Amino acid sequence: MAFLFQKMVVVGVGLVGGSLALAARRRGLVKEIVGYGRGEKNLKWAQKNGIIDRFFMREHQIPEGVDLLVMATPVQAINALTRSFLPKLEASCLITDVGSVKARVVRDMENLLPPGISFVGAHPIAGGEQWGAQAAVEELFVGQRCILTPTLKTDAEALKKVAILWRRVGAKLEFMDPVTHDEILGMVSHLPHVLAYAMVNTLSRWKVDSLDVKGYCGSGFKDFTRIASSRPEIWRDICLFNRQVISKSLGDYIKRLQQLRRWIRDGEGDLLEREFASANEIRKQIGSVDGKRGE
Amino acid sequence: MAFLFQKMVVVGVGLVGGSLALAARRRGLVKEIVGYGRGEKNLKWAQKNGIIDRFFMREHQIPEGVDLLVMATPVQAINALTRSFLPKLEASCLITDVGSVKARVVRDMENLLPPGISFVGAHPIAGGEQWGAQAAVEELFVGQRCILTPTLKTDAEALKKVAILWRRVGAKLEFMDPVTHDEILGMVSHLPHVLAYAMVNTLSRWKVDSLDVKGYCGSGFKDFTRIASSRPEIWRDICLFNRQVISKSLGDYIKRLQQLRRWIRDGEGDLLEREFASANEIRKQIGSVDGKRGE
Repeated sequence: MAFLFQKMVVVGVGLVGGSLALAARRRGLVKEIVGYGRGEKNLKWAQKNGIIDRFFMREHQIPEGVDLLVMATPVQAINALTRSFLPKLEASCLITDVGSVKARVVRDMENLLPPGISFVGAHPIAGGEQWGAQAAVEELFVGQRCILTPTLKTDAEALKKVAILWRRVGAKLEFMDPVTHDEILGMVSHLPHVLAYAMVNTLSRWKVDSLDVKGYCGSGFKDFTRIASSRPEIWRDICLFNRQVISKSLGDYIKRLQQLRRWIRDGEGDLLEREFASANEIRKQIGSVDGKRGE
Repeated sequence: MAFLFQKMVVVGVGLVGGSLALAARRRGLVKEIVGYGRGEKNLKWAQKNGIIDRFFMREHQIPEGVDLLVMATPVQAINALTRSFLPKLEASCLITDVGSVKARVVRDMENLLPPGISFVGAHPIAGGEQWGAQAAVEELFVGQRCILTPTLKTDAEALKKVAILWRRVGAKLEFMDPVTHDEILGMVSHLPHVLAYAMVNTLSRWKVDSLDVKGYCGSGFKDFTRIASSRPEIWRDICLFNRQVISKSLGDYIKRLQQLRRWIRDGEGDLLEREFASANEIRKQIGSVDGKRGE
């Protein structure tokens, strides 16, 4: 069977980039995989463990003949790094990413790239709080959703190849425009991350006698704040790149909390019960975690 | 071996009350267990499945000779129900509860009870989102924390017996004054519940084209909002009974969110990263969910 890609460069050999490399190799989709990153130790580990064949750490050392460039860094780095690779990229090179924000990434890339070099925005909704190549697993994307965000400018051939890549590593594909993607993910993923980080920090300032309040966190608190273990740089970038949506949804949320606070203070039992019962009903429709963790 | 109690009445044969009944019986701590509740179907199920020996549904039908009365209802119901049982209770009867709020419950009970009838406040930190007798499991309290909240008025003998009860069903005991209990639980449990309910309701009002945003919730969102499946009446009562603490902590939290929102809007990447990294560090110290769910 012919390879889908001859030379894949993975920029950021972490949980998602590393898992895609592993899955693509084991499924025979790519002939050669080259890693790029800043942490030599991480890259060496990835090479030793068969995630990548080799690696480079200076942008100008990117090899010739790259036909798939996967940007798997925090979203702020995608454009600048691509720009520095650009002089060595050949026409027919296909670029894709795995970022959790799409509108700005896609727009910036489309503005940057010359004709012939295609970009296809992708967001595999899989991951977790672990970082680095050591967290990579071949099966990360199996049965998980991957959203592709083509625009009118997206090359049809390139889109087709990226779709094949993600399908072959097991993802369920969905197509969506970048703005819609950001509006949905801003609510179901970005906002909860901000809230979880804020909860942990609020807890850390709560003084009760000389007791360590942290010691009393049960599984409710732990599940509630699990996503606060996610990598800070990634979420900083997401907040910056999807700031309008997150700011809007956070505003809606704060208003709701202010109302709840008034109800609690005023002892409005009926209103509180109605609020909780409504959330209860909606939460039922969302279902429970089925073993696999995905972000 | 002699029984610790002869006749135990469980008021509210749900997840916690039912589990305590099951555990107490299987460990030979009680001779007879009588259930009280409003739902006949639930009580019949509990009787049929050996959780209780028999049940009654009108307060004046409480049997004679009760030496342990366990109040396992939403906290608002504890005092009024106890008052209605009171004419039939004998001196030497011991009353305890399992409520998630302690200061007001303990104070109200101490004001209500005549000399001879003792109350010991207890809060087993175990549970989950399931409701009713069918959710009861014998091992619910094994290895989980149970906080007892004696005061200067608490009878030493009664405290000792309640402590034995909880130790024998597997709980790790801790003693704390009721106010301290509420300050800690208000932050690590009550506040997150309010936030999770509010998140689900905020999501339900978020319109993105004609898409059902709920369908895009990943495991991050699901874990974050798992506790929004908790029973509304229980959490309504907790909010009313611990309103000062919850209102205060919610106020702190809202302030933090407002600051985060400003940072997001103004693109303050460094401040956001510092906030997230700090939460990250603290979250590490709290640890992950170890299989057992406890509330």
